Order: sequence, then C-alpha cells, then structure tokens
Amino acid sequence: MRKNKQACYYPDYLQLNKIIGAQHPVSKDYGDEAHDEMLFIITHQAYELWFKQVLHEINSVLPMFKSPTVQEQNLGKIIHRLNRITTIQQVLLDQLTVIETMTPLDFLDFRDYLIPASGFQSVQFKEIEILLGLKSKYRVNFDKKSFYSRIREDHRDHLIELEEQPSLLELVDNWLARMPFLEFGEFEFWTSYSNAVDEMLESDKQIILGLEELTDEDRAFQLKDLEMTRENFDALLDEKRYQELQADGKFRFSRNALLAAVFINLYRDEPMLQVPFQLLTTLLEIDENFTKWRSQHVLMVHRMLGSKIGTGGSSGHEYLRSTTNNNRFFMDLFNLSTFLIPRSALPELPKSVKEAMSYFYQGE
Amino acid sequence: MRKNKQACYYPDYLQLNKIIGAQHPVSKDYGDEAHDEMLFIITHQAYELWFKQVLHEINSVLPMFKSPTVQEQNLGKIIHRLNRITTIQQVLLDQLTVIETMTPLDFLDFRDYLIPASGFQSVQFKEIEILLGLKSKYRVNFDKKSFYSRIREDHRDHLIELEEQPSLLELVDNWLARMPFLEFGEFEFWTSYSNAVDEMLESDKQIILGLEELTDEDRAFQLKDLEMTRENFDALLDEKRYQELQADGKFRFSRNALLAAVFINLYRDEPMLQVPFQLLTTLLEIDENFTKWRSQHVLMVHRMLGSKIGTGGSSGHEYLRSTTNNNRFFMDLFNLSTFLIPRSALPELPKSVKEAMSYFYQGE
Amino acid sequence: MRKNKQACYYPDYLQLNKIIGAQHPVSKDYGDEAHDEMLFIITHQAYELWFKQVLHEINSVLPMFKSPTVQEQNLGKIIHRLNRITTIQQVLLDQLTVIETMTPLDFLDFRDYLIPASGFQSVQFKEIEILLGLKSKYRVNFDKKSFYSRIREDHRDHLIELEEQPSLLELVDNWLARMPFLEFGEFEFWTSYSNAVDEMLESDKQIILGLEELTDEDRAFQLKDLEMTRENFDALLDEKRYQELQADGKFRFSRNALLAAVFINLYRDEPMLQVPFQLLTTLLEIDENFTKWRSQHVLMVHRMLGSKIGTGGSSGHEYLRSTTNNNRFFMDLFNLSTFLIPRSALPELPKSVKEAMSYFYQGE
Amino acid sequence: MRKNKQACYYPDYLQLNKIIGAQHPVSKDYGDEAHDEMLFIITHQAYELWFKQVLHEINSVLPMFKSPTVQEQNLGKIIHRLNRITTIQQVLLDQLTVIETMTPLDFLDFRDYLIPASGFQSVQFKEIEILLGLKSKYRVNFDKKSFYSRIREDHRDHLIELEEQPSLLELVDNWLARMPFLEFGEFEFWTSYSNAVDEMLESDKQIILGLEELTDEDRAFQLKDLEMTRENFDALLDEKRYQELQADGKFRFSRNALLAAVFINLYRDEPMLQVPFQLLTTLLEIDENFTKWRSQHVLMVHRMLGSKIGTGGSSGHEYLRSTTNNNRFFMDLFNLSTFLIPRSALPELPKSVKEAMSYFYQGE
Repeated sequence: MRKNKQACYYPDYLQLNKIIGAQHPVSKDYGDEAHDEMLFIITHQAYELWFKQVLHEINSVLPMFKSPTVQEQNLGKIIHRLNRITTIQQVLLDQLTVIETMTPLDFLDFRDYLIPASGFQSVQFKEIEILLGLKSKYRVNFDKKSFYSRIREDHRDHLIELEEQPSLLELVDNWLARMPFLEFGEFEFWTSYSNAVDEMLESDKQIILGLEELTDEDRAFQLKDLEMTRENFDALLDEKRYQELQADGKFRFSRNALLAAVFINLYRDEPMLQVPFQLLTTLLEIDENFTKWRSQHVLMVHRMLGSKIGTGGSSGHEYLRSTTNNNRFFMDLFNLSTFLIPRSALPELPKSVKEAMSYFYQGE
Repeated sequence: MRKNKQACYYPDYLQLNKIIGAQHPVSKDYGDEAHDEMLFIITHQAYELWFKQVLHEINSVLPMFKSPTVQEQNLGKIIHRLNRITTIQQVLLDQLTVIETMTPLDFLDFRDYLIPASGFQSVQFKEIEILLGLKSKYRVNFDKKSFYSRIREDHRDHLIELEEQPSLLELVDNWLARMPFLEFGEFEFWTSYSNAVDEMLESDKQIILGLEELTDEDRAFQLKDLEMTRENFDALLDEKRYQELQADGKFRFSRNALLAAVFINLYRDEPMLQVPFQLLTTLLEIDENFTKWRSQHVLMVHRMLGSKIGTGGSSGHEYLRSTTNNNRFFMDLFNLSTFLIPRSALPELPKSVKEAMSYFYQGE
Repeated sequence: MRKNKQACYYPDYLQLNKIIGAQHPVSKDYGDEAHDEMLFIITHQAYELWFKQVLHEINSVLPMFKSPTVQEQNLGKIIHRLNRITTIQQVLLDQLTVIETMTPLDFLDFRDYLIPASGFQSVQFKEIEILLGLKSKYRVNFDKKSFYSRIREDHRDHLIELEEQPSLLELVDNWLARMPFLEFGEFEFWTSYSNAVDEMLESDKQIILGLEELTDEDRAFQLKDLEMTRENFDALLDEKRYQELQADGKFRFSRNALLAAVFINLYRDEPMLQVPFQLLTTLLEIDENFTKWRSQHVLMVHRMLGSKIGTGGSSGHEYLRSTTNNNRFFMDLFNLSTFLIPRSALPELPKSVKEAMSYFYQGE
Repeated sequence: MRKNKQACYYPDYLQLNKIIGAQHPVSKDYGDEAHDEMLFIITHQAYELWFKQVLHEINSVLPMFKSPTVQEQNLGKIIHRLNRITTIQQVLLDQLTVIETMTPLDFLDFRDYLIPASGFQSVQFKEIEILLGLKSKYRVNFDKKSFYSRIREDHRDHLIELEEQPSLLELVDNWLARMPFLEFGEFEFWTSYSNAVDEMLESDKQIILGLEELTDEDRAFQLKDLEMTRENFDALLDEKRYQELQADGKFRFSRNALLAAVFINLYRDEPMLQVPFQLLTTLLEIDENFTKWRSQHVLMVHRMLGSKIGTGGSSGHEYLRSTTNNNRFFMDLFNLSTFLIPRSALPELPKSVKEAMSYFYQGE
C-alpha cells in the first residue's frame, strides 16, 4: 500500500479545468460561432495529447539504446513501448475519420480566420519526426525548405537542437551494426550469406539452362531476369555499390546494420533473435502507420480544400503527397525482403553460434 | 474573404500551453515517476476532450427538437451531428485498446496514489448520459445510489439541474408522438396496423392447421408459438398491457411514439420518411456504441484489477457489467423488430398519404 | 409466416463443402506444405466473396438510376446499399492487416510456385472498377496496357462488354445534369452562382485595397492570389475552359452535372436535397476507401517483395503507387470544394424554389 | 528458384468457381429473391473461411506444446501464429458491422425460410471453442444442453472426439506447471512469493495503525479491507482453498500453472521470460476478442430479432448474453492481477536464477 498524501479527485488530478477550458473558437470574435470550429479545435488538441504520449515513449526508449550494450532486460520494455506507439497510431488514424465529418462548406465558415496557422506548426509532430530519424537531410526538397520556415524562433531553435541528438534510426543502426554474431569464432556471416546467394543463383541458372521446353528467347529472358536479381543482391554485397546507393539516399542504415537486419530476419527463430526480430517488425509498423496517416491526410486535405484546378498550380494535397512517399523513417526495413533467401537455400548456423544464441538454462 | 484581425499561430490558437502542460504524474510526488502514469493521464484527458465534443453536438441538437414542429431543414443537420457522435465513439473504443497496453503490474506502480479517484467522477460523461436520456429513475439500483455519491457538491448540483431538462430521449419521444401521418384524413395507422397483424397471424394459423404432415404434437407446439407471437404484438397493441410494461420499465417511449417508430420503419422508403428512418438508426447506433464501450470497459477493468476471488465479494467489473446490460438509452429501438410485419403482409398506404409524404415538386 | 419447404441446415445452406473445401496449397505438390500458404489462399478468397457482395449492391443500384427520372422512393435504398459498400470496405482494409502477418520469408516458401498468377487477375475487382466508372480511357498508361493482358480470353471478353454499359459514374452524371432546380421558373442557378462569385471576389478585392497596414508588396501578393482564386472558379464558370480541362482529364462529370453537385452542396439543408447530398458524400467515400486500400496495398507489396534497388528498375510497388493517385472514380467530388462559396456569400433561394424542394405536406 | 510445374492462374488457384459459385438464396425458391439474403450468405461464408484459418493456426500450434519440453525455437512461431488469430478477430468483429447494415425488415423477407438453421450449427466455431479449451464441463448450463443437440450426427461425433484431445488451455497449463524456475537450486518461488505477500500486508497494516489522523471507524474499515486482500491472496496461497475454488469453477489452471503465470508476470523483463509473457498476453487477448465478439453479437441479435417482450419469456439475445460472460477460455489470466504484488514489494531474484534465465552469450 502506498498511502497517498491526500484524497485524489478525478477532475483535479486530470486538470480538467485546463483541458476542457482551452477551446476558444475564433469565429466567435467575428460574429456567430461556427458550429464545427469546436470539432476542429478539439480534434487537433487530441492529436497533440497523443503526440505528447508518443514523445514520452520515444524519449524513454532512446536512452536504453544509448548504453554501449543494450541490456537484454530492456529489450522487452523497448518493444512494449514501441508497440504502444503503433496502438496509438490507430487512434490517430481514426481521428482523421472524425475530422472528415466536417464538410468543406462548414470549414469555409471559419477557415479564413485561421490564416496563416497550419498543421505544419505542430512542434510536437516535428519532434516525433526528428527523433524517429527524419532529419533535414532526408526530407524531400519542398519540405526541407518549409520545415523551419513557419514556426516561431524558440520552437525552431528547439528543433534544430534535436537534430543534433542521435535519432532512433541512428541508435538502432548502431545497435544492429554492433550485433556480435555476424562474426563469431570461425563464423563469418558475410561469407556464409554471400556463398548462399551465389549457390542459389547458380542453381537457378542450371535449372533455366536445363529446361528443354524453353524457347531460346524465353531462356534468354529468364537469364536476364536472373542477372537483375544478382544485381539486386549486389546492392548489399558489393561494398562500393552500397556506398553509392547510400550516397544517393537509397539506403539509410550502415551496410553492417543492414546485414544484421537480414541475419535477424533469416534466423529469427533462434531464441536470442526472437525479440530483436519483433523489434524490427515494430519499427517497420511505426513507419507504415505514419505513412498510412499521411496518405489519408492527403485525401482529407484534398476533400476539404479542393484543387488549384484552374491555374495548374500545385495544390496543397499534391505537396503533401510527395511527403507521403518520401518522408519515411525505416525504408530500409521495407526494402529488406530484396535481400532474403528462401529457407531452402539458407545455410545452417554452426552449432557454436546456435548455442550462443540460446538460453544459458537448457532445460531438464 | 473574412479578414482575420491578427495572424493566427497554431500552438496559440489551440492553447497548447494548457493542453500539453496539464500532465502531472502524482507518482513523482512520492519518488520516481511511474512511466505509465503519463499514459493513464493522457488517455483520460483525451476522453474528456471528446466528451466535450459529444456534448457540443448534443447541446446543439436538443433545441432543434424543442420547437413545436421540428423544421424539416434541421433534420439533415441533426442526423449529421448525431452521426458525428457515432464516429467519435469509434475513437472512444480504440482508446480502450491504448489503455490496455498498460499492464496490471505497471498500474500497481501508481494505483494506490489515485485513491479514491475514479472514472465515476467524470462529470461530462454523466452529463452525456443524462442528456441522452439516462435519468436516475432508469438506472440500475447499484448505480442509482452511487451516481451522485462520489462527486463534489457543485458538480452534483449541476447534474441534478440537468435531470430537470428534457433529454434527447424525451424530445425524440415527443417528436415521434406528434408524427402527423398516424392519423391522416380517413387513414388510421393503429387500425391499419392492427388489422395487418391480425390477418398475418390468422393466415399463419391456417397454414399450420393445413399442414398435413405435422404430428398433433408439433401442430400444438406451433400453435402455442403463434399464441406467444400474438402476445408479443399485444404488448404494443393493447394499451393497458403497454402501460403495465412501461411501468415495469420495459418501455420508455410513449405508446404513440413507439407506434410512430414502427410506422417509420415499415414505410421508410417514402421520401418524407427516409431521413426520419436514418435518425432512428443513428440513435440506435449511439446506444449500441456506448454499450460496446461499456462491455469492453468491463473487460479492461477485470484485466487491470482482477477479481475478489478469495472473498466471493462482488468485484468492480461485476458491478460495471450490470450497467452494461441495463443502462441503455434507446432500448425501445432495439426491441422494435418485435413489432415489425413482413413486407408481404404490409398494407399499401392510401394514395393521399403517399402523396402527402412525397415532395411538392413531382418532376417533369 | 412463410413456410419453408424443408428444414434448413446451416452447413448445407451455406454450401460449406464448397467454401471450406476449396483450399489446395500448391506447395504441397512440391514437398511440405508452406504453413502460410493457407493464409494467402483464404485471404484472397475472402476478398473475392466480398467483391461478389459489392457487385451485388452495384448491380442492384445501376438500374434504379437508369429510369428517366430516379424514383425518390429509390433514393433511400440507393444510399443504403452504397453505404453498405463503404462498410464492406472497412473489412477489405482490415484484411490487408491480416495478410501482413505473413512475413516476406514465409512468403518465399511458396512465392515462386504461383508464377505468373497475380491479383491483377481478379476479374471481379476489375468488374467493380469498370462498373463504378473506371473505364479504360481513364486509366494511367501503364494500367491501360496491362489491364486486359494477363487474363483469360473469356474473362477479357466479359469485361470489354461491361465497358459498353453505362457506369455508375455516367449514370450519376446524367442524374445530376437532369436536376430540375438549376433552372426553375425565373431562377437560373448559373447566373445566381456566377453573380455571387463575382460579388465575393469584388468584396475581397475592396478589403485588400482598403487595408492600410499592408505594404505595397503584400497588397500586390494578395491581389495576385485573388486573381488565382478567380481563375479557379473560371474552370467551372467558363464553358470553354471547362471543356479544355475536361479534354485534359481534369474533369469527368459534364459541366451541368458538376454545377448540380455544387448546388446540392450549397443548399444541402433543403429537404429535397438532404438525401442527394448524402448520396454524393457516399460516392466520395467509396472512392476514398478504395484509394486508402490501394495505398495500403502498395505498402504491403513493398514490404513483401522489396525493391529493385540494385538495378534502378521500377518495382511493383512503384507501378501500383501510380494507380493509387490516378485510378480514381469520383475525383470531381474531391475537387468540389474549389467551387464552394461561404454561406455568408450565398444567395437566398427564391421562395418558389424553396417551396418546390420541401414536402407537399407542410405540417400543422 | 522453385520452378513451378505449370503456369498458375489466379482464379483457378483460388478455386473461385466454387467460392463465388456457392451462393443460392433460398428466397428465390419461393418467389422474388430477397436482396439482402446474398449479404446474409456471404457474411456467414466469410466467417467460415476465417474459422478455417483460425483452426489452421490452432492445429499447427497444439503439437508444439505437446512435446515434453516446448522448444524455445518454437516459442516465437507460436506467438506469431496466435497473434495472427487476434488480427483475424478484428475482421470477425468488423464483419458484424457489415451484417448490421441489414435491417430487421429486410431480414423478415427471408427469415422464415431458414428455420431451423442457426449459427449454433457452425461446426468450425465449435471446434475452435473446444480446441481452445471450452470443453463441455465449462459451459453454462443452457449451452451444455444445446451444444450438441442441433447438429448432424457425424458433426456431433467429430466434436465429441475433439473433446478427448488436450486443448490449448490444458497444454498451456502443463507447460506452465513444468516451468523450471519455480524451484531452482535453493530458490523456491512459493516461499519467496508467500513471504513477500506477508511482508507487504504487514507493512500495510503498520501504516494503517500508524495513521494518527484516522478515526477509529475508518481504521477498522481499512483493516477489514486489508483482511479481504489477504483472503484474496489466500485463494492462491492456500492449497485447500485453491482446490475448493477450482472445484467450484473459479479456477481452470492447476495451482502450479497459475503460480508460474504469476512468476512470469512479475519477472517478465528477464530475457527468458519476455516471450512467455507475450504468450500469456496473446492468450488473454484471444479470449478478450472472442468475448467482445460475443457481446456485439448479442446486440446484433437483439436488434435483428427483438425481444419476447409480451410474454416475459427469455429472448435469444438473453440466452446469448449468458454465454458472453461465462463461456470464457483464459479467465484465469484475467484474474491474475489479483495475485500481483507491486514492484516495490517484489523480492530480487537470486543471481543464479537470473543468470539461468539470461542468454548463454553475455556480450562483449
């Protein structure tokens, strides 16, 4: 029992005087209150509450990654908290459906009073983006320019400071790159993986050459296709190629980190890799959910504001759409399946490696 | 263009200093902050924000029902706003999933500090219940007693005042009971409906009597079943029976209102009844969604607090469960299908009634 | 009572022998069954079941639009059935989440056996697209070519035949264009609307010119912005401009149909326009939900198949993405808010028009 | 590359001739097809498809639990597959929303033709219930009787056979009870846990006795409350009491299994317990989702069929409601938080136990 100092009263504990006393429809200052402005205010406030919670989780997880070795004890906690973010994202998605119950005509009743306010001024959303890994260099050009332009100086300074801190993307990259089992005793995963790819492609080649029913043309086509598969693997296997593609923005993870992610995916059933595999999945889902949110947000903005159809200028929803496809956090995890090889072609792990990744306690 | 007096800044407009500055985890006052207390606070605050929005909608709709005749112009607006409530309820449901990411062990880190605060102290939730129609007399016994017991006097006085105002349930009841087409010229729906029920049951009886393959026992069984169907219809058709059942809490609508609801359901395709039919559907869905919310809330409370398994005392989740099944708003609309008759047995409306319910403008 | 001829047994009625007897994992033919192939099969079958239901609704609604005047009686039914489609679409979206529980590595266990089968071979999905309005001419180039290329001849012929039938888009266009109130007695909505736009823009201009605090530069900027707003309205108001834009694929509706849609949106509270307004909203939501589905499908495909990262070739998910943004049904309804004017600038309807759009029966 | 023997065609692979050729609305046999019967058929068929998938997952997981020690390698797989069930359950829930778009009046158009078919005849649903653990002895009385009464003999025999097999509930019970760390070297969790409970309760008692500001009455009340808390713990700690409660249906797990579940919850951060903790959470969520489904199903049935309001007889939805609260699978996991103690009162694990539960490989 933890004796509390004084009786707790729900409305006081939650500071409801602030929370439900913070809605002032600006339309009231110009005449009749526009009925739907309340919805507009409350939805955005609900977003900000949840953004605060998302930041609470991210900020609790970052330090756990910063220690030289991530404590295994913490991995369960990290996944639990990151998974919570994906659950909150469902609410964020649903809230778009609520705001869409406002019709464009109702929005027109107060839209002009809000100029030049914009969702781009949500400092917390920008914090989330930066802390997850979307630093300025990764933004699409349009967004690079406008990201800091519309917000107050103190807000801008705060965010620029955050850009200096290691993001979740960077910390996960370090954690992956440190992964001990890529080289363990005599085992080198680079070699083992590279050989398995070679064998698989060579075996595929023999199959194609051996198929008597193929026309020459089809055979040539299939061999060319196989050559392209090889080039795709080389994006990872060939260090120089990797660095070119990384410079070009195609990869964000370091090459060793990406290899570790491949390793975890391929051997995810090993006891020690089960939780790391879940972690990668959760990161991917956080990215996926934000991307879903951006896509639906584009549709909502289009519906609410229409298009610059008469002038051929770019409409707001078109700008936003470019961020949907490009302002991504863990794109590398989406591209990962490019580098997987089927279980049938997967080399067994050496016994020593398997043992090292199992529990100390080996049962009765 | 509505020139705004001064440039609007998103964080100021939304009063974010209040909104995201209103989280004080009480665990901090006793030692280390319990990580999940932030989630607990923010989720409850998000609920209160949405409750404010739900009240905004209800309070905008009530006056529209108060005018002697509901303006047809307003019906579209009423439905739109009540539908918005159902959309918000999806968010309320999803938020339960978020709070469930807190484990019971994590809750134990700060649970005792909150004593005796309780969700039962949400004044806004009680306002919603009262305004929708759940006045004290309709509450289950347990809830009747405790409803006003845990809240501050000013909050109690405010709610007791609300009990005096006509609720949505009562206003809808009046609106339905006023429905002009139940008697229109020579047409009396009571008679028409009552005859149709008689004919349908008589025809069913003849079918049963005529089925040669039935054993005597089966025939007796089916006739008894038919007799029960008749008694079910009599709950509505027999005025005295209706009043008994109403006194017993089985009906809340006045008898004429319920008949009007049956009329609207049966002839919902008539142009003038399409929107009223939608209104009844929306009311039913608001009730259904709150009931879903209560059911899931029971599960969450059970999971979080466990059971008084050792003492056989009633657990919190068991008390709550009783409100799930009984603290309903529009139960009459759920029971409505008891009184429907199939389209094949439905009498045609007289031409004069049909015309009166169509648009003035009859096309080219 | 409708006596049924023989006792109905649930598993027989539902033909479950067929439904749950139609899963044959092809991986079994080559060795061990890949555990997740069952999920792959069943999810796709569930999609096809729902596609059948969506087609059932569309095909029931199309004839109601075909009659010279749409019976008002049918409008309620039409909306109800189209709304059902939006509800089904939620299931279609959720099913993507289920298929995403298959990891890319698990998919590799049987992926190659499926070559060259593809979701592009779903004939029912193509039927839905065509019947809703996405005929060949509206498809993006890539899709124009491939749409008919991968399916069997009989399937192709069937679809090409469907292309000849009027689609929902075309039937709604006709229905809108026939709308009687655009010209009613002395009232001409074109004139009334056009004047209201002129007045609004002129008033805005005077406000800008009168704002003493503006710098010359700001004033010039705002006037230019106003000029662009004018050009946007001209896209609709200027017949020639409309036809150019339509030829360019920017509009699909005829000009009169689009004007009618604007009319319905602006005067949606008039009793006779409430249900048509809901219809337009439902059509927009059907489009929005399919677009959401396509966006999430792109993410799923990317996650499952990776990218052609090494070769710079276009990946499957990139092709698909182009269909997300462009293969739309009711884009015109999304652009509609471009042409709305705020209620404060909205001309009153003449009394005769208002009356014609209200019910014959005017209450007590 | 796994060369497939012949080109795969999507409609053939999915056996769509069966899947979308298995809808025969019975209303057609009596006259006009009732439009909504198609929805009724297809929704139920979609349920059966998903039931097949749920069974596929359950049946793949059961053997993994049957081996004397559950292979750690399999734990990741088990969780993944059980989690998939929870994802499918979201679809099952959404499908209820789809069926609810059918109005009771539309159902009346074909309802009588279906007599006496019933969802209670879904053999696959019963299989799921039995395999998860809901064997006859655990069913509510009403359901005990009717469970086997309405189905065909071959179906009944098949299910009765399943009752003989170990269910997931039983297998998980065995797995938990085998948990090695409850006794490990000198460590006995029973003792350690029991002492911690005693100390916590004694400390609480001292706090209460020491609070000078308490009135005698309040102090007596709080001491009595504490006594009840003690009795709740005794439900688990006192073996005889446990067996009484178990005989009474309050517990289903064996006492050792429940203790192991408490252990896993309290020390879930230990590397070796992270995945088992997730497993318990997933089982709880499967139960929770089925309970949600049952609750919403009750509402749907009430809405669709109404109540036996006139006769006071029990309505279908009332029978169903009793199964909602009582036909549970993993109730013990819901009650678990009764037996948790706060982290502040939690004894440290001995170093030897902690080590045994960490990975063999201890980092650099």
